[in-house]
Amino acid sequence: MDIAIIGTGAIGGLYGARLARGGNRVHFLLHTEYEYVKAHGLVVDSHLGDFSIRQPLVYSDVSQMPRCDLVLIAAKSTANDALFPLLGPVLKPGCAIVLMQNGLDAEKRLAALYPGCHIFGGMCFVCTYRESPGVIRNPDNERVSFAPFSPEDAALLDEVAGVFSKAGIDTERFEDLSLARWRKLMWNIPYNGLTVIMNCKTDFLVNDPAMRELVACLMRDVIEGARACGSAIEPGFAENMVAVTEKMTPYEPSMKLDYNAGRKLEIEAIYENPIRLAAERGFTMHYANAVRLALHALERKQRETVFGIG
Amino acid sequence: MDIAIIGTGAIGGLYGARLARGGNRVHFLLHTEYEYVKAHGLVVDSHLGDFSIRQPLVYSDVSQMPRCDLVLIAAKSTANDALFPLLGPVLKPGCAIVLMQNGLDAEKRLAALYPGCHIFGGMCFVCTYRESPGVIRNPDNERVSFAPFSPEDAALLDEVAGVFSKAGIDTERFEDLSLARWRKLMWNIPYNGLTVIMNCKTDFLVNDPAMRELVACLMRDVIEGARACGSAIEPGFAENMVAVTEKMTPYEPSMKLDYNAGRKLEIEAIYENPIRLAAERGFTMHYANAVRLALHALERKQRETVFGIG
Repeated sequence: MDIAIIGTGAIGGLYGARLARGGNRVHFLLHTEYEYVKAHGLVVDSHLGDFSIRQPLVYSDVSQMPRCDLVLIAAKSTANDALFPLLGPVLKPGCAIVLMQNGLDAEKRLAALYPGCHIFGGMCFVCTYRESPGVIRNPDNERVSFAPFSPEDAALLDEVAGVFSKAGIDTERFEDLSLARWRKLMWNIPYNGLTVIMNCKTDFLVNDPAMRELVACLMRDVIEGARACGSAIEPGFAENMVAVTEKMTPYEPSMKLDYNAGRKLEIEAIYENPIRLAAERGFTMHYANAVRLALHALERKQRETVFGIG
Repeated sequence: MDIAIIGTGAIGGLYGARLARGGNRVHFLLHTEYEYVKAHGLVVDSHLGDFSIRQPLVYSDVSQMPRCDLVLIAAKSTANDALFPLLGPVLKPGCAIVLMQNGLDAEKRLAALYPGCHIFGGMCFVCTYRESPGVIRNPDNERVSFAPFSPEDAALLDEVAGVFSKAGIDTERFEDLSLARWRKLMWNIPYNGLTVIMNCKTDFLVNDPAMRELVACLMRDVIEGARACGSAIEPGFAENMVAVTEKMTPYEPSMKLDYNAGRKLEIEAIYENPIRLAAERGFTMHYANAVRLALHALERKQRETVFGIG
């Protein structure tokens, strides 16, 4: 089976390397680290054991990649506008595309662009980050939740998730993509934004009593936002996310790493879209909206400081 | 007329010096700057003109002060628990006490402690800060809003405000203390907290579009919180506060200065009390609550960093 990894960051590198080790032919698209990874391979330092892929199949241009059976999009959602229209050359007719990104509401754009493909969301409940070029750390967790975009895609759900399971990756399957995405937002909406605004790691958000309360307010926004969108998150899931986070090695989520590095933040996918969808259905996510506005201001402030615009 | 200034910081120093220049006998209570001000006097650098009080009547102990006709409490609200019970010696029977603090709900504690006195709120719409020992800057604005605690105090409202007017201070008078205090919160609730959380001055909050939107959300909380408490803030007042802030010299509000200096923040008076009173009457101030929680966490984080507790 030919698998394409579109965007070999922490997520794409971690799962792509696992799938390659599991016996699949995995094609990695890289940008800045192309030369380095071509020469030195990929190294994964994981809580499940360390390993490396010495000679991965690497590409610096999507148009040079072969057509694949399974295409994993693991680039940041902030790249979607530029990236999505370029994927044609890598798509085998009838292939499956798994969008392994945070946030909500991007699968429908893929479905509109590539109606001959099967579209899935792949929500990663994982702690992972790029430690250095070609080196990916995975200190905690690894589960991927899969869900089909449409009922027609649902027939392939087990097959797609099975590719991951066979490579030893912990998976779960949902029929309702909206529910699966809102469940992932239960973690991202509180922890991604607050680590940026409070300039902290996850440990501060679970140890400080006021932050625990604000996390709980944000999680209630997610529960009610999901409910307004017709997705009932199971009782106890919010508390479970807090408990999982308590056990984590103190962690900087992707948005905090993006902020540290001066990259664009995934505000649209993680905040704008859920807030808009809930509002259209009558629920105002006040707390998430406050976080959204603070993130916009911090992103703008940093850009003006770094580039001397303001 | 003998006037006592309880707490000679920026507010107490500015208005006390104005009242002294206006011909009143003003007695200043000082703590850390007692020796310095005794030796060098008070200097006011104001947008209305600079002046100094060369030999102010200064005290380091409230029990050494004479009984006064008018007592201005201008210490931080965070000192109230310790300070209020000590005021007996400075109170002439039937005197007026003006609480020149931010926030809500402290006058009733004074009224309970000193039933023989007339209690007023004095809300300062002023930009002022202590530049150095004994030197007070007042770059913009100066107005004080007066309001009586009870209908029995109302008879003295004109007399008390008149003492300030005669000294050339811009005053306004309200019959409804709750309304007057909520009007002042219209400025404090957005600008005090957000300058701390965003580590900025007022100019960032009026220039950044996301911050303007968050300020507007917080002001709507204040309007609805006040309404729940039976106080109707006049239409256009929120927009007026934004316009006033746009014209200010970029400014760090008192809470930002407190945070910079590692002092306790006035979270209880400015956030806890209004949020609680509104909630008791059925309105949830979501945005103000988010700011409250972030401030608690920042205050605790700083205390643990400075004092090495955590």
